[in-house]
Amino acid sequence: MEIFLDCLPCFLRQVLEASRMVTDRTEIHEDVMKEAINIIKDYQKFRYSPEIGRAVHQIVKQRTGNSDPYKEIKKENIKSALQVYPLLKQFLDEKTDKLYWACKIAATGNIIDSAIYNEINIEEAVERELDKEFSICDLQKLKRELQQADSLLIIGDNAGETVFDRILIEEMALDTIYAVRSEPIINDATMEDACASGLELRTRLISTGCNAPGLILHESTKEFLQIFHQADIVISKGQGNYETLSEQKREIYFLLKAKCPVIADDLGVNVNDYVLKKC
Amino acid sequence: MEIFLDCLPCFLRQVLEASRMVTDRTEIHEDVMKEAINIIKDYQKFRYSPEIGRAVHQIVKQRTGNSDPYKEIKKENIKSALQVYPLLKQFLDEKTDKLYWACKIAATGNIIDSAIYNEINIEEAVERELDKEFSICDLQKLKRELQQADSLLIIGDNAGETVFDRILIEEMALDTIYAVRSEPIINDATMEDACASGLELRTRLISTGCNAPGLILHESTKEFLQIFHQADIVISKGQGNYETLSEQKREIYFLLKAKCPVIADDLGVNVNDYVLKKC
Repeated sequence: MEIFLDCLPCFLRQVLEASRMVTDRTEIHEDVMKEAINIIKDYQKFRYSPEIGRAVHQIVKQRTGNSDPYKEIKKENIKSALQVYPLLKQFLDEKTDKLYWACKIAATGNIIDSAIYNEINIEEAVERELDKEFSICDLQKLKRELQQADSLLIIGDNAGETVFDRILIEEMALDTIYAVRSEPIINDATMEDACASGLELRTRLISTGCNAPGLILHESTKEFLQIFHQADIVISKGQGNYETLSEQKREIYFLLKAKCPVIADDLGVNVNDYVLKKC
Repeated sequence: MEIFLDCLPCFLRQVLEASRMVTDRTEIHEDVMKEAINIIKDYQKFRYSPEIGRAVHQIVKQRTGNSDPYKEIKKENIKSALQVYPLLKQFLDEKTDKLYWACKIAATGNIIDSAIYNEINIEEAVERELDKEFSICDLQKLKRELQQADSLLIIGDNAGETVFDRILIEEMALDTIYAVRSEPIINDATMEDACASGLELRTRLISTGCNAPGLILHESTKEFLQIFHQADIVISKGQGNYETLSEQKREIYFLLKAKCPVIADDLGVNVNDYVLKKC
């Protein structure tokens, strides 16, 4: 997906927020913003929006001296997700079309980062989101392919959402590899986050080798690329991965909530719609 | 008020939106964004946030060749406001504390630019907003001063809101001067907009001489400055004027809705709160 101008102000807003999470020193906020402005000015040098995301968030890390500004938030998100995990399992247990609902749960996991950390609120938010149907739903295609499939690769997105993905993995009961970012970037899941989500018990965890908030294939390891190309089914989670992978040759199921107008437009859906789309 | 870093992404978002309103040519959107990024990079050269607003919106005007990108929107806003005018008059007529409600109506006028242009929606939105009380309300001070006052200066804000201000002016029945921007800037009211709102029948209209989306006194005309300093009471409408006038020596009543976190923080209120504050 190409880079949209709409992303530029959004990056500035995001790095200001990230800097403030780490430090109260306004001179650092100012330095981060100035350097981030210099980067977004040259947005045409980048191929994908998540590359700009990585570049501006690297400034936050450098200037604040904190290599993982979202560490605490990620911990909180995983904790919150683990709290609702038993309810989600029970919810799924009561459903007939289990694959549909497991996909819906995994897509809904994408809201965990904006939820308020209060047990009742999270439960309510998750229930409300689960009620919303997919706007694009290639479930029948997925079901057909699953009958012949032996291996599944899931490309992870945020920490916390990882716990919701676990439910989809448990439901599919396939030989699954779950891929994470090679190092902390925004609130995306790393190996540590995936382990804290209980994914190491259910899947083989692997780093993609790429540290952008969207998987860039030519930055990935040889090992990952082999898995990517050989897996019978690939499910890509979240917006960042959609931005970098939507034009790839291999068939991919994109499972996400369209949180911003740019992604929603590209998919032809409304903001906040849920999508399970084979591209 | 000082310039906050939060304003920078907001300006970028705003000029992209403004450029798209005027033209579909993406190369123009790109040029506008690049030049706007260059301006916000040097934000420390500016004294007030509305100065940056003026600079970036001037780029939109130059690059699109449209000297008034918000012209149609302003017309629509005035039309919508004139639609609810009779209802507002009737609403006020039924109230006991007329000055309180006239101030509340004038403050509520600040929402007209975000309302949907549908008669029922506007009426509902206005009614809902009128129900919300002021978070800061220096009405008693204003009432006391009004007993001795002969002259009133209102520094206008948006087109459309002007119609709501008319109700306050009609209620106060003072010798009133209403000041507007010297030329079109964003959706702020100009002389033409004030006339279209029916204000020329009720007040003496004057241009401040300043074309920023917040009144910068040292850019104003001598005539305006004389009025500003001599008026018994000055009411300043909206956020932009608050940003440039909040630290002025002369006493001013600021009448506004705090629409953004930066202004709300400065005033010590929540976002979306209403304020009538004497500074």
